[in-house]
Amino acid sequence: MKTYVKHDFPVSEIRRYLEPGPIVLVSSRHADETNIMTMGWHCVMEFSPSLVGCVIASGNHSHDIIRKSRQCVINVPTQDIATTVVGIGNCSGADTDKFEKFGLTPVAGAQVKAPLIAQCPVSLECVLKDARLVRSYDFFIFEVVAAYAAGTPKYPRTIHYQGEGRFMVAGREMNLKSRFRPEML
Amino acid sequence: MKTYVKHDFPVSEIRRYLEPGPIVLVSSRHADETNIMTMGWHCVMEFSPSLVGCVIASGNHSHDIIRKSRQCVINVPTQDIATTVVGIGNCSGADTDKFEKFGLTPVAGAQVKAPLIAQCPVSLECVLKDARLVRSYDFFIFEVVAAYAAGTPKYPRTIHYQGEGRFMVAGREMNLKSRFRPEML
Repeated sequence: MKTYVKHDFPVSEIRRYLEPGPIVLVSSRHADETNIMTMGWHCVMEFSPSLVGCVIASGNHSHDIIRKSRQCVINVPTQDIATTVVGIGNCSGADTDKFEKFGLTPVAGAQVKAPLIAQCPVSLECVLKDARLVRSYDFFIFEVVAAYAAGTPKYPRTIHYQGEGRFMVAGREMNLKSRFRPEML
Repeated sequence: MKTYVKHDFPVSEIRRYLEPGPIVLVSSRHADETNIMTMGWHCVMEFSPSLVGCVIASGNHSHDIIRKSRQCVINVPTQDIATTVVGIGNCSGADTDKFEKFGLTPVAGAQVKAPLIAQCPVSLECVLKDARLVRSYDFFIFEVVAAYAAGTPKYPRTIHYQGEGRFMVAGREMNLKSRFRPEML
């Protein structure tokens, strides 16, 4: 699988990659446990501080790791590793080393212990900002404290889950900038 | 602009349309005010009850209408009305009747007073379920109490905002159902 050289990306601009709704891979580490989960329920919440909310259901092995370590990395995969993304979502970290099983390469982060995934063109280091809704909805609000993106592809072919085993693959680009008021961009 | 005949759709399955991350049009009504806003920060949160969280910033004219009426309709538009979607996001309901200005057709809902938009193939009637994070993050948690979807197109060409006036248009479908464990579908 292709690995990416990623460069620093402004944390206040990560909507670029998350707002279109891609399925993501969340990597986590606590004590001697490392895991990856596939996740699709996330939401950009603020530019600065850069906030992202997401649902990590308590049935997932990653839930406790993230709740205890209070951090994770959100990685954005592309269509070329779609079967890997589905495989990760269909086994449990309770009995599987997912980095090993799926041949993924962990890369050390700068501000969190959870590893980045080299095979994803975008990775976001996150720390838990607000846990108020964890009990009610398994909803974690993270602050993105560091972000990295590969220069190419400029528009990654992300995959977008629709349920029932189906994904929409990111299609063509449409530039409507001329129709925006400058302060709305 | 094309209008759609929409049929009842199971509220517990609305991830089909929202999880891939389309930009949406939120319609609202309170007292004698009706409005529409363009919104991209949303997140499926639960199947049953069917919950959706979203950020509706207090700078938007719709914020107060929705906070006071405790309801709205989330409509999913497609690429053919992309310029209308951008136009709606670049003017204010404070001085504009957006249904009239953009030639959109309001349709009465069943359980909310806010109107559905006939020119969108999917509409979700929503009532406010949890306002705990409205003050901190402008984050509203809605329960979808009724949902409607047009039979065709089966896979609407939704548009997905990337910031800077650019959108990704929904591309091809990918079916990986055979790689899922049945209980994960």
